[in-house]
Amino acid sequence: MTRFASLADLRAACLDLPGGHLEAAAQVAGREATLTKPPRSLGRLEQAVAWLSLWQGASPPRLDKVEILVFAGNHGVTAQSVSAYPAEVTGQMVANFAAGGAAINQLARIAQAELRVMPLLLDKPTADFTIAPAMSEAEFLDAVSSGYEAVPPETDLVVLGEMGIGNTTAASAISAALFGGGAERFAGYGTGLDDSGLTRKREAIDQALVRHDTILGDPLLATAALGGRELAAIFGACLAARHRRIPVLLDGFVCTAAVAPLFKLRPDALDHALSGHVSAEAGHRLLLQELNLDPLLDLGMRLGEGSGAAVAVLLLRAALACHTGMATFEEAQVSGKES
Amino acid sequence: MTRFASLADLRAACLDLPGGHLEAAAQVAGREATLTKPPRSLGRLEQAVAWLSLWQGASPPRLDKVEILVFAGNHGVTAQSVSAYPAEVTGQMVANFAAGGAAINQLARIAQAELRVMPLLLDKPTADFTIAPAMSEAEFLDAVSSGYEAVPPETDLVVLGEMGIGNTTAASAISAALFGGGAERFAGYGTGLDDSGLTRKREAIDQALVRHDTILGDPLLATAALGGRELAAIFGACLAARHRRIPVLLDGFVCTAAVAPLFKLRPDALDHALSGHVSAEAGHRLLLQELNLDPLLDLGMRLGEGSGAAVAVLLLRAALACHTGMATFEEAQVSGKES
Repeated sequence: MTRFASLADLRAACLDLPGGHLEAAAQVAGREATLTKPPRSLGRLEQAVAWLSLWQGASPPRLDKVEILVFAGNHGVTAQSVSAYPAEVTGQMVANFAAGGAAINQLARIAQAELRVMPLLLDKPTADFTIAPAMSEAEFLDAVSSGYEAVPPETDLVVLGEMGIGNTTAASAISAALFGGGAERFAGYGTGLDDSGLTRKREAIDQALVRHDTILGDPLLATAALGGRELAAIFGACLAARHRRIPVLLDGFVCTAAVAPLFKLRPDALDHALSGHVSAEAGHRLLLQELNLDPLLDLGMRLGEGSGAAVAVLLLRAALACHTGMATFEEAQVSGKES
Repeated sequence: MTRFASLADLRAACLDLPGGHLEAAAQVAGREATLTKPPRSLGRLEQAVAWLSLWQGASPPRLDKVEILVFAGNHGVTAQSVSAYPAEVTGQMVANFAAGGAAINQLARIAQAELRVMPLLLDKPTADFTIAPAMSEAEFLDAVSSGYEAVPPETDLVVLGEMGIGNTTAASAISAALFGGGAERFAGYGTGLDDSGLTRKREAIDQALVRHDTILGDPLLATAALGGRELAAIFGACLAARHRRIPVLLDGFVCTAAVAPLFKLRPDALDHALSGHVSAEAGHRLLLQELNLDPLLDLGMRLGEGSGAAVAVLLLRAALACHTGMATFEEAQVSGKES
């Protein structure tokens, strides 16, 4: 059990990160060069296999145990009418996940991944961040610790996702706090706001940025003040995966904003993470650029739940199948490049 | 059996095309709107399901029988040293396909697709198009007919791919003939040319564009003069799929160039086709823009064999799983948008 007892403990854990397994990645690159295709002709598929092996320390890497972790939380800022859907939808969708009826259920099955959904005190929304910090320090550490502990010690890939009515507002606020530009830069229509809804959302975010201005220079305090429990848990899960050298696939805007403070604390903190997709939510592309993350997919998705990242698992499976199943030039007696 | 006896017959077949099944697509859209997600939040996945049903005439659409057709051919223009690999690699790779050792074998398995490879007179390369038309009218019609006949009457999706040392040279020449700009606009490094190789490739293409200038206004004659048997077969297969209203996934640059003449003959001729991916071969992105095709994937792949399109099949499977498996708002008792 790892519970972070203080912000100082958490900060220390964020700064003390292991690197990857260079030998395994080198072995993968060595085999890759012998396979019956022009060098690098599988593009990002080849890179993805090398990345899996770098973090798993295995050549070839494995995708036998893929875990999709979906964290859910409720947000006090919904009092400002920043979402097109009522707050009770968070809990209703968690029930839908349990019943197998959501998009992520179908995608987890197709991706041959285990889906685990963790609702975080849904009946206790965070505070409205236009008025007070969304979470106290203790609440924030609890949520981070829940995420940290949710990552199993032995798994081949962790896929992170979320559900929480109002959480693109939190994600936009964190993004603006960390990278500047205010609400206008990062806030979009979310699940389907109209123009006046977007105006309310931006006003709420800018109000919060002013209210919490004095602590926004600290990525952890900023996340406690502007985030939500599911974002804090994703932060914790991504950190746990790094400590265990487990590769991570990130989902969309909210998920990316949740891990952005890790990058802010240490620019190589997300080297074990790939961006599964760029969502249609306008702020996501900008945020990925700030984090130097290049998404695998660009399909105009904007659902959350880990859905985009779950689709990206399919690409990793395709990549691994090529790496492990292809014949070498020698085996297939295919001529190489002309000198 | 459909063998095209004359260019006039083929041209008539290219101009006489059925449209899609609007009722089935409308039914799919109707169900889509009831599923537990914000409208359109699955982006291109939703569009892909609607497209499948539009052409299959089924709601929901099916992906029970997916056929990957890979056509292979040899090119006389390799005499001009336009490829980094020797011409015998075409036949060696066809043997590798038969033995299950190529990338497309692994990807077909992952995509749960049937792979069929059709070598087209590999021991009889087309003529060197810098000197003469690559194919006579009879040779061209034979190759088109082979592709046309290769499409099974009952299948849910056809995925088109190719193998042919030298065929990005043919693809670049066809693209330039149809859309202008000369070799510089469309010719790239192919499977791994160096700079002097690229110069030779461009010179060969520009030489051919001058030599065959008088017939380049006719998309069919241009394809016979500049193409190759595998490109002509892809052209025929794409046409057959349209006549049978079977949706088609296109692979990379060569595959797209092969079907471009259909678009030139009739701008809606590729409505039953999606671009599976945009390859790293520079001309592909430009060509897709000319054809108004928006690729599903952008992974820096440049292997051919149908590999990029085979990966895209996974996206269609994910899309269909969501469409058929998700609960409706009513079934899941989830609240809709606030009015």
